[in-house]
Amino acid sequence: MSVIVAPDWVSLAGSLADLARPIIRRHFRTPLEVVRKSDSSPVTIADREVERQMREKLAETVPQHGILGEEFGAHQMSCDYIWVLDPIDGTKAFIAGKPTFGTLISLFYKQRPVLGIIDQAITGERWIGALDRPTTHNGTPVRVRACEEVARSVLFTTDPDLFSGTEAVKFRRLKARVRQPMYGCDCYAYGLLALGCADLVVESSLKAYDFGALVPVVTGAGGAMTDWRGEPVTLGSAGDVLAAGDHRCHADALSLLA
Amino acid sequence: MSVIVAPDWVSLAGSLADLARPIIRRHFRTPLEVVRKSDSSPVTIADREVERQMREKLAETVPQHGILGEEFGAHQMSCDYIWVLDPIDGTKAFIAGKPTFGTLISLFYKQRPVLGIIDQAITGERWIGALDRPTTHNGTPVRVRACEEVARSVLFTTDPDLFSGTEAVKFRRLKARVRQPMYGCDCYAYGLLALGCADLVVESSLKAYDFGALVPVVTGAGGAMTDWRGEPVTLGSAGDVLAAGDHRCHADALSLLA
Repeated sequence: MSVIVAPDWVSLAGSLADLARPIIRRHFRTPLEVVRKSDSSPVTIADREVERQMREKLAETVPQHGILGEEFGAHQMSCDYIWVLDPIDGTKAFIAGKPTFGTLISLFYKQRPVLGIIDQAITGERWIGALDRPTTHNGTPVRVRACEEVARSVLFTTDPDLFSGTEAVKFRRLKARVRQPMYGCDCYAYGLLALGCADLVVESSLKAYDFGALVPVVTGAGGAMTDWRGEPVTLGSAGDVLAAGDHRCHADALSLLA
Repeated sequence: MSVIVAPDWVSLAGSLADLARPIIRRHFRTPLEVVRKSDSSPVTIADREVERQMREKLAETVPQHGILGEEFGAHQMSCDYIWVLDPIDGTKAFIAGKPTFGTLISLFYKQRPVLGIIDQAITGERWIGALDRPTTHNGTPVRVRACEEVARSVLFTTDPDLFSGTEAVKFRRLKARVRQPMYGCDCYAYGLLALGCADLVVESSLKAYDFGALVPVVTGAGGAMTDWRGEPVTLGSAGDVLAAGDHRCHADALSLLA
């Protein structure tokens, strides 16, 4: 275990996911009032209730740390340690009753994501990744699979229409080369990659709360995750991400996104 | 209960799904040899094992009925009653470890689908639809939701690239009008529609074993399902389908697909 990520914080992250599950399960597939935020993304009472409870627990347990959440914003952002939360990543899937959304919990240290949890409340799956620790899926260590090149890869992205301009051109160039493009998975796709079931995930316009948890999960399973220029993903990254199980496939995909 | 669908056959369909579940669960997220069929669609040992066991059970129980299966073809197709089976609809999702595929079991009577099951082995969900019987989800009757028009709808399709030529033009016209397009669900999307969580599903190039089970599930929950010209879906249909929870939305979508 890394000295950067205290074992207690891994447990704390797990307890945040434990708080989220019953709230999400209670609201899943029930009629929900959907509010559109300023960026037109949807939010429900479940998103807000989950984040509120997670923030309360953090304020109680690690008041010396910062918090950045999708629904309730930033707190103490000058801290070295910042918890970055997405109560429901894939709110559209959540609203449509499709269990491929997830609760994302991450801890950044000096702008780098060092701990991440993807929790799927309905299927009861939890991926935990942290610095210098193998990623686990429901407690069992998992590992990416080999995939030498893009031509052999299964690629996931949530929605091909989310790319625009030159990004759309680059995405189409990559997609044309993969063995199998697949859609509609949000954070769950990164979990499948960590399990060795998929090879590439490419997305853009993500926020820190969308990608923070994914990096430790992917890298702790042996994969690579950077932006589209191959640079490390940090708290302030622009939000274009490329995850690959096999580092050779990552390099190959980068050359197509360049 | 309709005289066309004997209660015993609903139980029989359920027992076919019971046979499928343990086989699928055993192979889920394990390394599988994937064979490409002549149409380049993938098939695994799990698809074949499930269909083989279902066919054996049918041959034993209703030898007087015909069978059409995705993997092992047609048997006694001149019968009034024909069981139409897709052991794993969404084999690509199954291979990628994404639990939105399903086992599809249907019974056609004089070319019309009169009984259908969508079974999701991993989440443990089963939708049963039959003529003159409310559709159930894990035993509980379910109902579509109201959605007056396309502009308010959530639309599902598995893969936007599966449409080509004029179909692609029509699909884009429809997609441009919906409130929210969503991707990557295979048969699970029709289940979500029956639950009142989605409003439209549009696909093309389906085979009878892809759509047979979906029609009774959708219509038994109060929805409408036809081809893109509004004609009933039959054993010999071309495979373009439009399902809607609300009949007004179905009519509205049809006008855009015309």
